[in-house]
Amino acid sequence: MRNILTIAGSDSSGGAGIQADLRTFAALGNYGASAVTALTAQNTIGVQGVHGVPPAFVAQQIASVLDDLEIHAIKTGMLLDAENTRATVCALKKHYADRTMPPLVCDPVCVSTSGHTLLAPDALQVLTQDLFPLTTLITPNKSEAELLLSRSIVSLEDMLVAAKDLLSNGSRAALLKGGHMTATLGDVDALARAHPEVRVVREGLYGDNMEILVVNCPPPGTLVVDVLCEAGGPTTVLARPRIDSSSTHGTGCTLSAAIASALAGGATVLESVISATAYTHLGIETASKIGAGYGPLNHLHSVSQKSIPARTPGNPYPFTRLLINGSAAIWKEYVEHDFVHRLGEGTLARESFIHFIKQDYHYLKYYARAYSLLAAKSASFPLIESATQTILNVLREIATHRAFCAEFGISAEDLEHTEESSATTAYGCFLMDVGLQGDTTKLLMALLACLLGYGEVGLWLKSAAAREGSGIALEGNPYRQWIEDYSGPEYQAAVRIGLETIEARAAADPPSPARLSEWRAVWHRCTRLEKSFWDMALELKV
Amino acid sequence: MRNILTIAGSDSSGGAGIQADLRTFAALGNYGASAVTALTAQNTIGVQGVHGVPPAFVAQQIASVLDDLEIHAIKTGMLLDAENTRATVCALKKHYADRTMPPLVCDPVCVSTSGHTLLAPDALQVLTQDLFPLTTLITPNKSEAELLLSRSIVSLEDMLVAAKDLLSNGSRAALLKGGHMTATLGDVDALARAHPEVRVVREGLYGDNMEILVVNCPPPGTLVVDVLCEAGGPTTVLARPRIDSSSTHGTGCTLSAAIASALAGGATVLESVISATAYTHLGIETASKIGAGYGPLNHLHSVSQKSIPARTPGNPYPFTRLLINGSAAIWKEYVEHDFVHRLGEGTLARESFIHFIKQDYHYLKYYARAYSLLAAKSASFPLIESATQTILNVLREIATHRAFCAEFGISAEDLEHTEESSATTAYGCFLMDVGLQGDTTKLLMALLACLLGYGEVGLWLKSAAAREGSGIALEGNPYRQWIEDYSGPEYQAAVRIGLETIEARAAADPPSPARLSEWRAVWHRCTRLEKSFWDMALELKV
Repeated sequence: MRNILTIAGSDSSGGAGIQADLRTFAALGNYGASAVTALTAQNTIGVQGVHGVPPAFVAQQIASVLDDLEIHAIKTGMLLDAENTRATVCALKKHYADRTMPPLVCDPVCVSTSGHTLLAPDALQVLTQDLFPLTTLITPNKSEAELLLSRSIVSLEDMLVAAKDLLSNGSRAALLKGGHMTATLGDVDALARAHPEVRVVREGLYGDNMEILVVNCPPPGTLVVDVLCEAGGPTTVLARPRIDSSSTHGTGCTLSAAIASALAGGATVLESVISATAYTHLGIETASKIGAGYGPLNHLHSVSQKSIPARTPGNPYPFTRLLINGSAAIWKEYVEHDFVHRLGEGTLARESFIHFIKQDYHYLKYYARAYSLLAAKSASFPLIESATQTILNVLREIATHRAFCAEFGISAEDLEHTEESSATTAYGCFLMDVGLQGDTTKLLMALLACLLGYGEVGLWLKSAAAREGSGIALEGNPYRQWIEDYSGPEYQAAVRIGLETIEARAAADPPSPARLSEWRAVWHRCTRLEKSFWDMALELKV
Repeated sequence: MRNILTIAGSDSSGGAGIQADLRTFAALGNYGASAVTALTAQNTIGVQGVHGVPPAFVAQQIASVLDDLEIHAIKTGMLLDAENTRATVCALKKHYADRTMPPLVCDPVCVSTSGHTLLAPDALQVLTQDLFPLTTLITPNKSEAELLLSRSIVSLEDMLVAAKDLLSNGSRAALLKGGHMTATLGDVDALARAHPEVRVVREGLYGDNMEILVVNCPPPGTLVVDVLCEAGGPTTVLARPRIDSSSTHGTGCTLSAAIASALAGGATVLESVISATAYTHLGIETASKIGAGYGPLNHLHSVSQKSIPARTPGNPYPFTRLLINGSAAIWKEYVEHDFVHRLGEGTLARESFIHFIKQDYHYLKYYARAYSLLAAKSASFPLIESATQTILNVLREIATHRAFCAEFGISAEDLEHTEESSATTAYGCFLMDVGLQGDTTKLLMALLACLLGYGEVGLWLKSAAAREGSGIALEGNPYRQWIEDYSGPEYQAAVRIGLETIEARAAADPPSPARLSEWRAVWHRCTRLEKSFWDMALELKV
């Protein structure tokens, strides 16, 4: 994240001025500060009033920002008049007298989209003579360039010359915006032929070996052409399709703010201009109609709402919490199932428990196979290793399981020959099917639902046993070992690793809402299948 | 997207005031407009200056916004003095004289986080008597509530009474913020026991059946408790862990802006307060240090940068474009391969072409099997159907392929007994492996790289044939039929469907950067394998 300062006017309707700048900075992931030079009461139809800010207060705002925040780029927009332009120049020069000024982009705002004068005529000289020499880039449109050069610009050839002449005041680069002119693909090709020294960037017009896209896309009608001239460097012509839209209020502010954002991030002037024009273009193209006149761009096309909150020290498991909350009712039915209750009270019928551990034996076979499938699907040695370790753990658990079963009079042969009940098949085959259908994360989601669920059941039993009057007790409970196992440190350590795994996955590869809802569905289904497993055991279902 | 108006001060450092409000609106997906009541020159250390805006101009800004934009919620922040408070009230009353006012949230800002007075004492009466009666909710903190009620608030019990008393001026709800007080879990439990009529919401403190999260998370030290009182409705106590942070500049602005956002979207007051406190809390918890004093919150924790631009009429295939651009060099080597060149010139050795079509026969078997795997992995009938249709198309193509091969003297038996070359095995088995490893989208990525690639090759040959002096011609070319097939309407229609499929997938389930890079890797690998396939054919490799 970079900090960027805009020195500009305020647009009450939010589409231009510091509001457009700050929204652009934010949409591109940066932090914005602002010094207001003038307030405007305006909307998409026009400017209804302007309130100038005293020059000393403009300077004070700039100083407050620069004295405290490390600023990585600055842009100026509407400067109102000679006094405020001078105040801006002085404040910048004062602060940066003894240190390097970050990239400075000057959008020489003179007239609003709706035609309102935003810069007093006497300010032009201060702008060109005092501010331009400090700038990395100035970004006049056609009429501003005409004002600055005192001549009219009619053709693409005029633009080439004008862009160069705009450097005469000491700006290191000038971007002459041709939004108010029209050109065709042919015009641009002709210009390229006539000026082989000029670089031509065709933005959004596809490139080599993309004919499948071209034939399926309507050809652009007219083009918008900008010309970027860099002092001592090349001239670049940037052409892109013109969009027919009335959502253009604040286009210039947005472009220069996006350029400042890119410069703050260390991009070159050309890279910054290319990424900023693409950002601005898409802002116009994706805008919804707001207001009755020239509405604002959609600045937020570059971001989307996160579907899982950030992991923080205070909430280290936001994703698991979302999963549990999203299936709260069935999760509770599962964790606090009658089978679990009776097991905790020690009143569970012995045959139910035996039915459970026999079926659990079969389930563990699916579980180990599903981890083998996970290993087969894994793309790296650490992932293959971690899945394989889990299989080895399950195989060790099976040995313990056999010994545990023997205590209940079940031989290894009994276990092997027990017929698998439908609930076991459903759960086990669901794991395998998720493994067939989806990627490793989806399969992990299913496998971890089981791991975490038993962890929760173990902890619930343990806390209930510690609670007066819960009826649940460890002392003298024939199933004590089972409860100790799942609430014990070894299993809970595995739970913790499971939590870390699932959260790290979700954080490293944040899902879209669609993908998140698939993951939630897997979690929900596993919880239901776990509950059915208790039902099966309790009711001795086949 | 909803439009929200903030009427407040400007904070040059960007952390509070309209800047915090607009950033919050944007981060929550809404559009913001603003009427500035005062400019402050401030930073994270303090307020260095205040420039009041004339009351008439405050009113003008509000009118400009309301006359043009449909506004779905309004919030007020720093109103500076009695005149500007009155101007605000009058402008709102005037506009909404004959229509319903949207939800209005008043954050009665009196003092900045750094201790600077932001509301003239004589404004209090206008605030309470004229503005409060219009509000859906007021959101004072402890010291503001003390000022409004002329008494001190010391305990949670005091807060309960104060929240109710704050409704006396006609606000429909009051949220008394306890950020400057401390409480423990025990205090909140005691309050809940003493006041069974009060609803207690424990935010971020986990819930039932989440012990696995609790035991793995450090217990909260002290809590922050807010009290929400709704006129004629319940009182709610909201408790959450206190965060030890200096990134709290603009917390009140952010909270009330987030509440206004939620209200604009149709949420109830309680829902809005809960989501807004969660948003604000995470903004503090995830903030980076900015400035030397009390820095701003991270307003952007709720959004992430999109990795694929939006589909628009001007750029209907942004994802495919990204894929091709990302592998531009190898893609060009593949599309304009020597094999393709010679095929277009008609100079390709007959045995190379025969080797190619024999190997293509084997490849198509993998291709059909990979689509069968896709069908097996698909979760809906339309997806199963579309994969199956493609298999049937391949089977029909095989019949044509056999007939075409016969023209080159290759019998069906020859085809079946041709030994598979390594390049064919590599490409075919890669498809199957992608199908084993990943989800349906990843498999589609591999399958469509092949479909789209041949479409591009076909179009490239066709355009080259139409270009003077390219050396490529259809007339008299022994491979004309092949070129006509892949550049022809039937195959190109399939290409178009492929493009739509891939773009629709990416748009419906936008990938994280990590997932996108997996998709790009698959595309890149397929392009390399396609190129190797031409190499194999041209050089008669086994």
